[in-house]
Amino acid sequence: MDFRSDNITGAHPRIMEALVRANRQRAATPYGGDEITERLQARVRAVFEHDRLVAFPVVTGTAANALSLACIAPPWGAVFCHPQAHVLVDEANAPEFYGAGLKLVAIPGPAGKLDIATLGKMAGAGGRGVHNPEPSAVSISQASECGTTWQPDEIRALAETCRSQTMRLHMDGTRFANSLAFVGCSPPELSWKAGVDVLCLGASKNGALAAELAIFFDPAMAGEFERRRKRGGHLLSKMRFVSTQLEAYLDDDLWLANARHANGMAQRLGGGLAALPGCRLLYPIEANEIFVALPDAIDAALKRAGAKYHPWPGERPGEHAYRFVTAFDTDQTEVDSLVVAARTARAA
Amino acid sequence: MDFRSDNITGAHPRIMEALVRANRQRAATPYGGDEITERLQARVRAVFEHDRLVAFPVVTGTAANALSLACIAPPWGAVFCHPQAHVLVDEANAPEFYGAGLKLVAIPGPAGKLDIATLGKMAGAGGRGVHNPEPSAVSISQASECGTTWQPDEIRALAETCRSQTMRLHMDGTRFANSLAFVGCSPPELSWKAGVDVLCLGASKNGALAAELAIFFDPAMAGEFERRRKRGGHLLSKMRFVSTQLEAYLDDDLWLANARHANGMAQRLGGGLAALPGCRLLYPIEANEIFVALPDAIDAALKRAGAKYHPWPGERPGEHAYRFVTAFDTDQTEVDSLVVAARTARAA
Amino acid sequence: MDFRSDNITGAHPRIMEALVRANRQRAATPYGGDEITERLQARVRAVFEHDRLVAFPVVTGTAANALSLACIAPPWGAVFCHPQAHVLVDEANAPEFYGAGLKLVAIPGPAGKLDIATLGKMAGAGGRGVHNPEPSAVSISQASECGTTWQPDEIRALAETCRSQTMRLHMDGTRFANSLAFVGCSPPELSWKAGVDVLCLGASKNGALAAELAIFFDPAMAGEFERRRKRGGHLLSKMRFVSTQLEAYLDDDLWLANARHANGMAQRLGGGLAALPGCRLLYPIEANEIFVALPDAIDAALKRAGAKYHPWPGERPGEHAYRFVTAFDTDQTEVDSLVVAARTARAA
Amino acid sequence: MDFRSDNITGAHPRIMEALVRANRQRAATPYGGDEITERLQARVRAVFEHDRLVAFPVVTGTAANALSLACIAPPWGAVFCHPQAHVLVDEANAPEFYGAGLKLVAIPGPAGKLDIATLGKMAGAGGRGVHNPEPSAVSISQASECGTTWQPDEIRALAETCRSQTMRLHMDGTRFANSLAFVGCSPPELSWKAGVDVLCLGASKNGALAAELAIFFDPAMAGEFERRRKRGGHLLSKMRFVSTQLEAYLDDDLWLANARHANGMAQRLGGGLAALPGCRLLYPIEANEIFVALPDAIDAALKRAGAKYHPWPGERPGEHAYRFVTAFDTDQTEVDSLVVAARTARAA
Repeated sequence: MDFRSDNITGAHPRIMEALVRANRQRAATPYGGDEITERLQARVRAVFEHDRLVAFPVVTGTAANALSLACIAPPWGAVFCHPQAHVLVDEANAPEFYGAGLKLVAIPGPAGKLDIATLGKMAGAGGRGVHNPEPSAVSISQASECGTTWQPDEIRALAETCRSQTMRLHMDGTRFANSLAFVGCSPPELSWKAGVDVLCLGASKNGALAAELAIFFDPAMAGEFERRRKRGGHLLSKMRFVSTQLEAYLDDDLWLANARHANGMAQRLGGGLAALPGCRLLYPIEANEIFVALPDAIDAALKRAGAKYHPWPGERPGEHAYRFVTAFDTDQTEVDSLVVAARTARAA
Repeated sequence: MDFRSDNITGAHPRIMEALVRANRQRAATPYGGDEITERLQARVRAVFEHDRLVAFPVVTGTAANALSLACIAPPWGAVFCHPQAHVLVDEANAPEFYGAGLKLVAIPGPAGKLDIATLGKMAGAGGRGVHNPEPSAVSISQASECGTTWQPDEIRALAETCRSQTMRLHMDGTRFANSLAFVGCSPPELSWKAGVDVLCLGASKNGALAAELAIFFDPAMAGEFERRRKRGGHLLSKMRFVSTQLEAYLDDDLWLANARHANGMAQRLGGGLAALPGCRLLYPIEANEIFVALPDAIDAALKRAGAKYHPWPGERPGEHAYRFVTAFDTDQTEVDSLVVAARTARAA
Repeated sequence: MDFRSDNITGAHPRIMEALVRANRQRAATPYGGDEITERLQARVRAVFEHDRLVAFPVVTGTAANALSLACIAPPWGAVFCHPQAHVLVDEANAPEFYGAGLKLVAIPGPAGKLDIATLGKMAGAGGRGVHNPEPSAVSISQASECGTTWQPDEIRALAETCRSQTMRLHMDGTRFANSLAFVGCSPPELSWKAGVDVLCLGASKNGALAAELAIFFDPAMAGEFERRRKRGGHLLSKMRFVSTQLEAYLDDDLWLANARHANGMAQRLGGGLAALPGCRLLYPIEANEIFVALPDAIDAALKRAGAKYHPWPGERPGEHAYRFVTAFDTDQTEVDSLVVAARTARAA
Repeated sequence: MDFRSDNITGAHPRIMEALVRANRQRAATPYGGDEITERLQARVRAVFEHDRLVAFPVVTGTAANALSLACIAPPWGAVFCHPQAHVLVDEANAPEFYGAGLKLVAIPGPAGKLDIATLGKMAGAGGRGVHNPEPSAVSISQASECGTTWQPDEIRALAETCRSQTMRLHMDGTRFANSLAFVGCSPPELSWKAGVDVLCLGASKNGALAAELAIFFDPAMAGEFERRRKRGGHLLSKMRFVSTQLEAYLDDDLWLANARHANGMAQRLGGGLAALPGCRLLYPIEANEIFVALPDAIDAALKRAGAKYHPWPGERPGEHAYRFVTAFDTDQTEVDSLVVAARTARAA
């Protein structure tokens, strides 16, 4: 009953099989000059229905995010994001490092989504020429750090504010598949058609071993990505082993199947807990994360039952809250056991 | 009637005389190896009653701040400051540049001073090891960007929070002299005795041509300053011409006399305006800046009279506010003319 | 007959098996907190007979090198290396990037090894305080970029020069296993016992998929490595899949068996070519690379036969030279076919 | 008799007068928005006969050089220069810092000038795409670090090599005035007409207090200069005090008069020494620096007579060499005294 994160998982069997298969070829051109990487490019274009996009495989989300932001914001730029954004608080200043000292600016907003009006005001506030950080980009997480999903029309509204200030829109899509499965629209509808300029599509948390994809819908913005990736030590010589994970991830919609399973488990777990008196969901469950306030007795009972999960800041005075994360391989019986344990504790 | 800023001024005559005098010597050891720079070091130690401090002259406040912060916070560090802090919004990401990608984190608070309780909470929130930016330093402006002054006991309280989180305390003292004159205490009481680790003492806005002083009260923190200053292109070959400005600045308390004059003019101007119906001071006047909401008629009249000053965000709905800055050379008759113009407009 | 590089290979079967095995465990603590990574640490200490070393897995040699150099040289430092060093000419300025602008200084020398006397002179030349780049480290490649091996006594001599100038010694051990197999000594004898401070041990070119290990023999020098790795986006969440490759690499001396095979194939190939009139080895074969000048007729014949390999700058006027690289999986029949093709061409 | 450097000097009286005069105006728009800075721009365009150039005042040559190089070379770029170039060995890695990790590559050549053929070969050697540092710019010093002057035709030849490799040509013109006076051509003939893209025109060593000018002949290359200058802390609020120095420097050809004096003194001193048996000029005197090998007896005699000057690496075995620098204010009687002292020592 380990619900600490979706990054505690291993690889999905089909992704591991793809690795084994890719290894049957004795020799391949290194550094991404191989056939699998070439094939992946075409596949991503098909999936996102966009024939000009360029996609770059890397092995971590931090690398994908930081490299992408460096391509769309100058060293004297400001990149706006939510106060809880992974790029802001969980990446040890990687965006500032890759961006040669760019600045991340926090814009608060409810349920993990920055407030668009505040953004408009903040981005428009500068204007004293060279003195102020130059408003350059906005970064949002899909799903958000609160497990909520940006709907296409919300993204469009945000993108309009970006356009009006000549800012670019970056999406940290670590859990993009989960949001996509939640919304039920097509990949383009949740990305470039809604105004996203760069999407960092996660796979590592949803079935891959270590694979992420930085997708630029406007190739002109990606001009420096390859140099930056190499300079950051992120150009793997045997790149085909990253690309093959991503190919298998998209094959037969494995990514969506995985995400649907994880989302379903989250609904089941969240629903089960929320039904108990004294338990309260902090945010709606719109992907594979549950943020829930629990009475201490339930928390204690769950831990006795062997469940693992992380604490989370409560939103009301005295509230003790927690985060549970499900994944592509979450076992339904474990979810049910956890809910039973909570229910039993409550009854006691 | 130019009240745009104290940086529109020239040099005080005694500082210009010092320059002329320093130029009488034909040759001097370059790069700060000269006698004047050596003398300055001793003088600063005497003024601050601290025999171990080390002080480094530079020509801009941005350089002083950014170089200092880079010495006390690592590239993966977080430096906390007020949302209006000059280092945050007016230095084109210089701290991030010199700090190799460190992060500035905004902590709100009234009247230009960050809230200490919020700081304690934010600095204490991290703890997931290598992922989170490492709380490393706090930077405050003296006077604040709202023209208010940090009192010694306020600084002490802040320094205690810093110590409890092993953070260093940096003071951007662009208008330190104005605050010192306002408080009326000794230089050490407003700096190291209150817990300041590094003071960037401004002179350019208060009578110098281009001279600032980065003062480290703990020389161990300054270990890399000289390398960083050279690498930043801030080690002037003819350093004596910077040092001589600072020496003259401290001579016979010129800095305090200048600050007292500027502060007095601010009180006179602010008092005159605040007495008028419809006018409202946004913050108490505790240095040489006045932030005041004015009725549109008064604003128009002042501009007709030739007065220059900058707009400032109002704090109440519909409020139109402005910033006036006085300086060491502000002419009292100009202040009085401005107040008369405002009074006349009001009466009309 | 693909001899372009040892990075065209896939993974050794035992390493792929280790991956599959590691994937059987459903959940593991992320970011290197897992059991495999812990076990790896102990294993590396045993292999290198050093109970205080710390070892950090990463996925590319560029990352290992650049992160390591940043730990042992300051931004104003100079790192000396051979003009052909991978860190200097093949990593798109990664060392300068991670090192916040440190400087790499080329020191020539025959057969891929920098000249120690020139190094001593260059490193000792500075001394004007803050102006000159501070001599901080020396980086050598093992095997060298010319396929030659630094013998323990050569390393010791170099390390002495480093010590006398308070510089650290970094070894880019991309092909360390090949050199180790060539020399036939123990791992410590070719590293810390000879004076190496930091060894970047390669595995990717010798049987792994994507795995390298930065080994610090003095943990004090590694203090910042973990922060830097995270900030560079090189801390994989599912680190166990990198660690397991390295564990399998060291298990039952797989690394040495692989290296011996590659070296043997290089001797066979190099010996076969060098025996032909008009062919000339540029450097002795001391690892798994052959640098050989070939008559145009032989070059043409090899290419007709389907052989792939890269050109290399000749050392004598008019000389056309080439690089052939063997690997852990080089097929002896391919080597023999190539030699036969060359011999036939020569005879024709 | 202080011949250590031309940076031991103070300011020329006319430059000090300009400072005093600029201070008579009470208020000026800060950060270079003032009239003097505007006037300077027009003046520089007239002097260099180029109506599109843009010129940026800064206070150190290191800042001018590093900021300029960052504008014309990317972080993954290579900038070629002579092994003795100031930017390479005397600026504490400032170019790498401002250039976010760009690489300086040394190209040897006689008498302080890099060899053009070697440059062509080195710049053309890369070509493996993202792996190799991208050849981006060439930087030469005028006068060179050996006191020699690049003639217009030499610059043209170099510029052709730059063009053929799409590299830009940067001139560190710390002693540009001295070279200009030596050649006797017009400013454009020694800069843009010969193919220079960016000229860092020095004034600090030739009569100014602290003033340098980064001149971009193609404004498109300067697009980011202002942001970079601010971010580096080099945008002085009272910029008019830098601009006024430069204006006075160019007024009535003060810069040329100063340079001619310094050059004349160098010829007189160098000629006097070179005429003595056992004394040997290392390089021709083509500006205001003399590099001369002296017998120990003469060196000792000069030092006894109170002369100050720096040692310099000899070029022949056992040779003891020295550098003497003259300046705009060098006293002819001191030069003559020094020569007499040398002659006397020789005779003894």
